[in-house]
Amino acid sequence: MNFCKMHGLGNDFIVIENLQGNLSLDKFQIVSICDRRYGIGADGVMIVNSSETCDIKMSFFNSDGSEVEMCGNGIRCFAKYVYDKDIVKKNPIDIETLAGIKTTFLEIQNSKVIKVQVDMGTPIFESQKIPIDNSKERAIDEKVEFNDHLIDFSAISMGNPHVVIFVDDLDNYPIKKIGPFIENHSLFPKKTNVNFVQIIDNENIRVVTWERGAGLTLACGTGTCASVAIANYKGFVKKKVNASLPGGNLLIEIKDTIYMTGEAVTVFEGIIE
Amino acid sequence: MNFCKMHGLGNDFIVIENLQGNLSLDKFQIVSICDRRYGIGADGVMIVNSSETCDIKMSFFNSDGSEVEMCGNGIRCFAKYVYDKDIVKKNPIDIETLAGIKTTFLEIQNSKVIKVQVDMGTPIFESQKIPIDNSKERAIDEKVEFNDHLIDFSAISMGNPHVVIFVDDLDNYPIKKIGPFIENHSLFPKKTNVNFVQIIDNENIRVVTWERGAGLTLACGTGTCASVAIANYKGFVKKKVNASLPGGNLLIEIKDTIYMTGEAVTVFEGIIE
Repeated sequence: MNFCKMHGLGNDFIVIENLQGNLSLDKFQIVSICDRRYGIGADGVMIVNSSETCDIKMSFFNSDGSEVEMCGNGIRCFAKYVYDKDIVKKNPIDIETLAGIKTTFLEIQNSKVIKVQVDMGTPIFESQKIPIDNSKERAIDEKVEFNDHLIDFSAISMGNPHVVIFVDDLDNYPIKKIGPFIENHSLFPKKTNVNFVQIIDNENIRVVTWERGAGLTLACGTGTCASVAIANYKGFVKKKVNASLPGGNLLIEIKDTIYMTGEAVTVFEGIIE
Repeated sequence: MNFCKMHGLGNDFIVIENLQGNLSLDKFQIVSICDRRYGIGADGVMIVNSSETCDIKMSFFNSDGSEVEMCGNGIRCFAKYVYDKDIVKKNPIDIETLAGIKTTFLEIQNSKVIKVQVDMGTPIFESQKIPIDNSKERAIDEKVEFNDHLIDFSAISMGNPHVVIFVDDLDNYPIKKIGPFIENHSLFPKKTNVNFVQIIDNENIRVVTWERGAGLTLACGTGTCASVAIANYKGFVKKKVNASLPGGNLLIEIKDTIYMTGEAVTVFEGIIE
């Protein structure tokens, strides 16, 4: 079986073609493929399927074998793959996912995709829809007590729940303590992702995300969009913001919806039996 | 550049051919290749070089880019690679390494190598050569104090220092506390690997190794040889012992020197730019 290993900001994926529709991988096979020592090693597997309604269809599986709706870092790699491999030679490319149709805009250099812009949808401010256990309509400038002092935060949904905490000094903030504390706080019935954001100026921010169920990660696309949405709402930044993440940089633009632009990298091609 | 990803008991390697001698990888490139997210991902890189004195020559680099003498799990994969790829079609194969010439004996099934036996050399019992700070000639049945109770241990060298501790119940022994305590104890001027060994019967043991500088690993070849050497010296086991490690099984045989037999697995082949 042929495959391609790719990454977006260090979030890494194995791409496998199934245009004829005769490939079938079970949960155990996905887990084996993603194993970093006994298998190929990756955070997830993306299957390239033909689509009846779009240019192409993406199926996304986490390394635990579960199928999930979408992955912001993954879909950039997916778009690069189908373009570079001449499977879909157009721009933009509409990709069918379990989270709906995602339109990807390609930045091309020497006939290869180097960056991809994805429409990440509209942020949801309503407390009930985030969800946060809160009698107010929105959850902006809320407070939670931790070890006798108050932490200011705001919450928002990008399809998944996000808390945003602005800090003065990201490098010395106790992220590993506050992250899991907020993630599992009783305010959040479905738990929450937690984004720690340092404002550099009104066009540049730094973001570190404590991901729900995963802990610290190199780059969280929805978390970065949530961070910019809240930072713009509070007047800290403009509508076009460069975000520096541990895994690399993302450009976030607030238009009718939120657009995210980032790199997509092919690491190697392989054959596994 | 073509490569092959292999593993021996979960210890994984990237094998790259350099038979023409025109390949040159610097430290940064080795580190990049071994990165599990941005690169291919492995514990080490093995370069296949031609040899003037042996059948073939192995150069071994750790994932931090440093060149080391030898790797027990690695050389089994190396032998399988050069045989399966028709580079050296003989059995046994003599491999030139920085630790001297290593003879590997191949177990072949359907024209492919499935297991490899390696001569791991002679254990060294002399305290000074291990080294352990000890006035006695040998370091058998020594004691060290930890949290007000005494831990019995023996020490030996397989080219690198090893402590062996026999325990009744490997699954409930505080390996993560005792391992680093012994590793860094002042008795060991070059620090030490620490092997925790449970005797099942006189032909079967279980071994978990706390590796010097690396912590818990899936399988340590020299540690398993050291464990069997001490266990045999103390009369616990015969001269042919099956060792069950977290990453898989090794067969250890005490003859003139110590022979270790274990699996070698090809995971996938790839091309990286």
